[in-house]
Amino acid sequence: MIKVALDAMGGDQAPETTVAGAIRAARELPIEIIMVGQRPAVEQSLAHYPKRPANLSIVHAPDVIGMEESPAVSVRKKRESSIAIGVELLANKQVNAFVSAGNTGAVVAASTLIAGLLPGIERPGIAILCPGLKGDTLLIDVGANINPKPLHLLQYALMGEAYVRWVMGKQRPTIGLLNVGEEESKGTDFIKEAYSLLESSGVNFVGNVEGRDIFSGEFDVIVCDGFAGNVALKTAESIAQTMHQLLKRALSMNLMTRLGAWLAREAFLSFRTEVDYAERGGAPLLGVNGVSIIAHGASSSKAIKNAIRVAYESVRHELNQHMVESIQRHSQHVPSS
Amino acid sequence: MIKVALDAMGGDQAPETTVAGAIRAARELPIEIIMVGQRPAVEQSLAHYPKRPANLSIVHAPDVIGMEESPAVSVRKKRESSIAIGVELLANKQVNAFVSAGNTGAVVAASTLIAGLLPGIERPGIAILCPGLKGDTLLIDVGANINPKPLHLLQYALMGEAYVRWVMGKQRPTIGLLNVGEEESKGTDFIKEAYSLLESSGVNFVGNVEGRDIFSGEFDVIVCDGFAGNVALKTAESIAQTMHQLLKRALSMNLMTRLGAWLAREAFLSFRTEVDYAERGGAPLLGVNGVSIIAHGASSSKAIKNAIRVAYESVRHELNQHMVESIQRHSQHVPSS
Repeated sequence: MIKVALDAMGGDQAPETTVAGAIRAARELPIEIIMVGQRPAVEQSLAHYPKRPANLSIVHAPDVIGMEESPAVSVRKKRESSIAIGVELLANKQVNAFVSAGNTGAVVAASTLIAGLLPGIERPGIAILCPGLKGDTLLIDVGANINPKPLHLLQYALMGEAYVRWVMGKQRPTIGLLNVGEEESKGTDFIKEAYSLLESSGVNFVGNVEGRDIFSGEFDVIVCDGFAGNVALKTAESIAQTMHQLLKRALSMNLMTRLGAWLAREAFLSFRTEVDYAERGGAPLLGVNGVSIIAHGASSSKAIKNAIRVAYESVRHELNQHMVESIQRHSQHVPSS
Repeated sequence: MIKVALDAMGGDQAPETTVAGAIRAARELPIEIIMVGQRPAVEQSLAHYPKRPANLSIVHAPDVIGMEESPAVSVRKKRESSIAIGVELLANKQVNAFVSAGNTGAVVAASTLIAGLLPGIERPGIAILCPGLKGDTLLIDVGANINPKPLHLLQYALMGEAYVRWVMGKQRPTIGLLNVGEEESKGTDFIKEAYSLLESSGVNFVGNVEGRDIFSGEFDVIVCDGFAGNVALKTAESIAQTMHQLLKRALSMNLMTRLGAWLAREAFLSFRTEVDYAERGGAPLLGVNGVSIIAHGASSSKAIKNAIRVAYESVRHELNQHMVESIQRHSQHVPSS
């Protein structure tokens, strides 16, 4: 049976939401869930539920890495933290996957240092599924690696292609390179080098794409440096929130708009579901030797459950094995760095 | 009287929308407008209007630089284009400002090469006013300079500060540095260098900000490299469009949602006005010796009119003189590069 370790202490509302999410996942999925965290706190949250699912257990971790702590320092010093112990379970093959809504940098550092990377991969990348009118786009990297080499972007393309193909079931995914314009001549030297690597790599590279393409759904995978990806993702999140606020304010303008909003409530509910990141769950940290999933710090229990589902699907579809094969197959194209 | 040259051929719907925008601006503002472009085409669009305002004239430019042409090449080769001739009017002090919704790269190149930069400025930056719940934020740079030095970000900060202070009338604007996290230790070497330059510069530097802060309105000015800024801006535009589409689709779901949407139509109109970039007009290309304003390629006549208004306000408040004074005042902090 597939085993998933969940960082019980990760996220703004942990362990309440992590426990709630774990219980939902334990009921819905044919997996074993190991909650890693401070046992008394986890037990206390679990006590709110009448019946603990049999496929849910606890591994005690006395320490917690805070959301604001330095990733490198905290992972080195807090070897007894829920993140370090959870990733150790992954490294020792005691679990198939690790899920955390905690300190993203710490999860990246621990996954890289303790679990290690897949053969042929130099740096991991955080992949986010972005909803668009024409479908979903996997954006890699949104912050694991803010100063990548061009070769890392090629590795993201190969891993992203494998993810979309094997986990999402789409044949021959299209790959775009995030740039400031579509023409091949655009961009920094870094981008131009990445362009030529991608072009000769054998992936289904469709050329440069722009910020506006991230949420259009026209491309299956978009690769970028972690700095630009992080800025784009956080900008998108805040725009979506701001628009919701503005719309809410406008709809409460007067009696008629309020009546209209009430009559149209079904539409707003459907709209909210479509743009709700919680529906999409966690972001895979691609390249780690073992499945490592990062969830949003503000994750609801539904988001935690869906992050666990993403972990489950990645393991079930043998994502890492496919990624390694893909990297090996393309290794003749990959110059040594 | 303040004179503004308008690139009559710039934008997706030129010269219809540029002529319409120029007529609206000529009626509303105490300025002279010189439309630069192919005289027959401009005359033809003008013929739709019963009366041509007296403060509106035409300067013939036989060539047009297309939206997809290489900026560097087109500006060098097409010296008779509307962009080149318009910027030459600016360089020769025949006009106070130039406005274009045409090829952004060509406007940046022509402004830099033909009009030149202000003393102490090494590279110009495109500044965009981003609406937020708590106010507006000026984001610099969104694409003029995709590979800046840390010093350029300090220059953007000084210019942005002057813009917010003198054109928008806000004392002691706050300045943030776009990064992937708030802690001082975050970011690439480039960002860390920019951080320390900003910290010791005497501007009201409030530290690192994130993508989510661009549309929060909590900061007056955010500086960034043109690559990240361009990606953020285009992502924001597409998210806003996608959300509109999704909302529209949801509201047409059934009879009740359609009735609700109709009753609440006043709210949707107010919502659209708030997020409509056309209300905000053009983006100043800060650092040019003479006011140069870039409008969106998809500008409506209202957006063109508002871009002309931005030009007018910049000239009226003697923005460039204030920027030069600010640069000079801070020059003791600025290391030679």
